[in-house]
Amino acid sequence: MPVPPALDLSAGSVALTRSLCDLPSVSGDEAVLADAIETVLLRHPHLDVTRDGDAIVARTMLGRAQRVIIAGHIDTVPINDNLPTRVEDVEGDEYLWGRGTVDMKAGVAVALVLAAELDDPPVDVTWIFYDNEEVDAELNGLGRLARNHPDLLAGDFAILGEPSNGGVEGGCNGTMRLELRTSGLRAHSARSWVGENAIHKLGDALTRLAAYEPRTVEVDGLAYREGLNAVTVSGGVAGNVVPDAATLVLNYRFAPDQSAAEAADRVRALFSDYDVVVVDQAEGARPGLDAPLAQAFVAAVGAEAKPKYGWTDVARFSALGIPAVNFGPGDPLKAHADDERVLVSQITDVERALRAWLTTS
Amino acid sequence: MPVPPALDLSAGSVALTRSLCDLPSVSGDEAVLADAIETVLLRHPHLDVTRDGDAIVARTMLGRAQRVIIAGHIDTVPINDNLPTRVEDVEGDEYLWGRGTVDMKAGVAVALVLAAELDDPPVDVTWIFYDNEEVDAELNGLGRLARNHPDLLAGDFAILGEPSNGGVEGGCNGTMRLELRTSGLRAHSARSWVGENAIHKLGDALTRLAAYEPRTVEVDGLAYREGLNAVTVSGGVAGNVVPDAATLVLNYRFAPDQSAAEAADRVRALFSDYDVVVVDQAEGARPGLDAPLAQAFVAAVGAEAKPKYGWTDVARFSALGIPAVNFGPGDPLKAHADDERVLVSQITDVERALRAWLTTS
Repeated sequence: MPVPPALDLSAGSVALTRSLCDLPSVSGDEAVLADAIETVLLRHPHLDVTRDGDAIVARTMLGRAQRVIIAGHIDTVPINDNLPTRVEDVEGDEYLWGRGTVDMKAGVAVALVLAAELDDPPVDVTWIFYDNEEVDAELNGLGRLARNHPDLLAGDFAILGEPSNGGVEGGCNGTMRLELRTSGLRAHSARSWVGENAIHKLGDALTRLAAYEPRTVEVDGLAYREGLNAVTVSGGVAGNVVPDAATLVLNYRFAPDQSAAEAADRVRALFSDYDVVVVDQAEGARPGLDAPLAQAFVAAVGAEAKPKYGWTDVARFSALGIPAVNFGPGDPLKAHADDERVLVSQITDVERALRAWLTTS
Repeated sequence: MPVPPALDLSAGSVALTRSLCDLPSVSGDEAVLADAIETVLLRHPHLDVTRDGDAIVARTMLGRAQRVIIAGHIDTVPINDNLPTRVEDVEGDEYLWGRGTVDMKAGVAVALVLAAELDDPPVDVTWIFYDNEEVDAELNGLGRLARNHPDLLAGDFAILGEPSNGGVEGGCNGTMRLELRTSGLRAHSARSWVGENAIHKLGDALTRLAAYEPRTVEVDGLAYREGLNAVTVSGGVAGNVVPDAATLVLNYRFAPDQSAAEAADRVRALFSDYDVVVVDQAEGARPGLDAPLAQAFVAAVGAEAKPKYGWTDVARFSALGIPAVNFGPGDPLKAHADDERVLVSQITDVERALRAWLTTS
């Protein structure tokens, strides 16, 4: 069995971010990195370490009144010629460039450093490092933990280290895909008047979509901006045939003031004269910023809370009844980008803020 | 070398239709049938027989003042469990059922019987039996003959035995395909407001198409009905991406009062705010019923002339300056159908009409 590479936590979160990125762990291929993380955490007797697949859970067991979960995924999307990492200077600012620097090895580095260091926090802490976030939801390591070890996910508040530019992004929009289908009557296009063109029937739906004004909804003090878009259109039989079927796939990003079922009803009402079917869906998450621990956290890190637009695993905590926010270094718009890069000062800022919150009672 | 199966012309055009169909000759696989046709025509000294690939040309050389071309293709679209032929009774009418019965072995059978029989017609006749009509235009046997032996295609009037329900169908609509393309700005659908949806932009074009009233145009006394249809629509990058490109493929069937260039201008004017590109095109053909021979033919067969909507090889004669009509047994709507079948009485009616015209001066 190969010896896993040793992680040097004493080098600090920036150097550790580079080590974590330069040890590639594209989804499905996280075992070596998980081994390294497990090994380094097992050295710290204040942590109770459990492994499930390539997910590692490390808990303090101090009998505190409250427990905070701090979680992050250790996988990345595929590398695209953007490893190994390098340091870049962009207009006087220092960046760490490379796959995973934003999404989300910098957040993982901060968590690892603090997990090892903080042996007497004022709340118990459950540190979670999990696999397979960037792929099919069925493979998601956090979801697997919730199924296999629901006790390990108990807590009063959760922080997900997803990139949020060092700010606090609460909750997330839900997302669903729907198929809008039209039907007609097939005919040879040389005698098109005996047929009925299903593609033409999409015109009205697309005009409605183009004119549609998505809602902006305030939930727990945060303004969530929705989006309703056609993401795919298809139809046609052959170059000389009036088509009898066409399909529009819609993606609705809906604010967490409504459930997926309510969101589907809203889309169906907009297209009541069409055949509309939900293909897949994921509930949104309310920001949960009314919870006392959440309010204390936002106050402590001194950042203004903002809504998260993209769907993240905070929705999994939300579904378990645990208020959850995103808080991590990196610009979410650079996640998955070929020029993925994180502002170095955001890594140290996030580390400092988390440490401050977890060392004052 | 295998001996080609012998065709028995004395059995009459109905029995011969069955023999021709039961000897499959899907496009590209016409050699055996072409051999059989060549063999049987060579037995008749009043015919001058030339072969080019799997096309056979048989001409009378009587020095008449005028020459009529009577042509038909010997290939079919692929068989779909609809051979061998059988006789069917549908509500008291006798049909010949099976691939090729309509398109167009019945027309070929009539031509073969008359080519052998009529050794002293009042006009010279050029009988053409050609290959590869049902596939890519580049392979078309009539087109190849026009390139290799233009002299063999000289004539004053042409009759194509394509199914026309035993009536005379003059000329044909032209056809063209055009691509209408939209563009936008790609973005993650969770932040769709930073993007620009190319699919949504198709809405206006489709609404215009649905409302468009195709022209009906009288040309040389026949009313040509046009059609403008979307035949394919496509667009989309992924389920979570605002798409930056979408494409609509249009098929315009245009009356022969306008050239393909004029037809393209008409479509471009309708979509002047879109990017529209012609993908392929085929000119239409005026019916040419003002030609004296054409008028005499229509009068002789006693059928009312109608317009042909679908594109046929009459356009090739038209391009050579030869007035041409479609005249053959079979309902064009049954061409290529799985239940392809021809009314037996139409075969004998067409045979009788052609014989009458070609035996009276």
